[in-house]
Amino acid sequence: MNEVPILKIGSTLLVSIQVELQDDTVLQLQEDLAARITRTGARGVIIDISGLEIVDSFIGRMLASVAAVSRVLDARTVVVGMRPAVAITMVELGLGLHGVQTALDVDRGLALLSPDSGAAEDVLLAAVERDAG
Amino acid sequence: MNEVPILKIGSTLLVSIQVELQDDTVLQLQEDLAARITRTGARGVIIDISGLEIVDSFIGRMLASVAAVSRVLDARTVVVGMRPAVAITMVELGLGLHGVQTALDVDRGLALLSPDSGAAEDVLLAAVERDAG
Repeated sequence: MNEVPILKIGSTLLVSIQVELQDDTVLQLQEDLAARITRTGARGVIIDISGLEIVDSFIGRMLASVAAVSRVLDARTVVVGMRPAVAITMVELGLGLHGVQTALDVDRGLALLSPDSGAAEDVLLAAVERDAG
Repeated sequence: MNEVPILKIGSTLLVSIQVELQDDTVLQLQEDLAARITRTGARGVIIDISGLEIVDSFIGRMLASVAAVSRVLDARTVVVGMRPAVAITMVELGLGLHGVQTALDVDRGLALLSPDSGAAEDVLLAAVERDAG
């Protein structure tokens, strides 16, 4: 029982990490997630880490790599549910989760990934570009 | 790391069971869930069992008991993600998940728990009562 389930909520996939991740579990998860994005046409991936008491560089790399794979499949990744103590430890360790977007909880992650929010971002970008041009 | 995270999606709580449940984990989960329903005013609970390869009478009782506790706190429970092999084994074992509503996946569970679906059910009930009266 070392397979991490991938849940579908509308056009978003949700992965809740609750177990100590091993190398092969991570590889399996990446493969499953890529296959699932392709099959469902999902536009967003939410990774919940509220079950994790420790986020080390291994987990950090895993999250960045999942986000990178999702990105080339045209899906955005948001990491949610980080515990306060985990955030503090990560910063102390110099881990910044670069290239990975975060949100406080699943609700905010879903809001961030909703088509409306994407549209709002596009409008913002357009405005920024217009101002710059 | 034997605490099962409870995720909030709108007015629904989502629990994804991925680990072998022990007695104390189940008690902890029931307490956490009851506290969370009270705190958030959640109207629905979705329990995802897609990570489980076996559902025995212990898990069956746990699901029924979570549903019963949620019910007295005015929240409906839907069990989702049952694997086909699990369903077959459960029926062979004579376990019917009595008193527990099921749905194929999280999406359908959310649809079942949405206020509209509840309203539709009320309308249906009213119609049935009218016809009977």
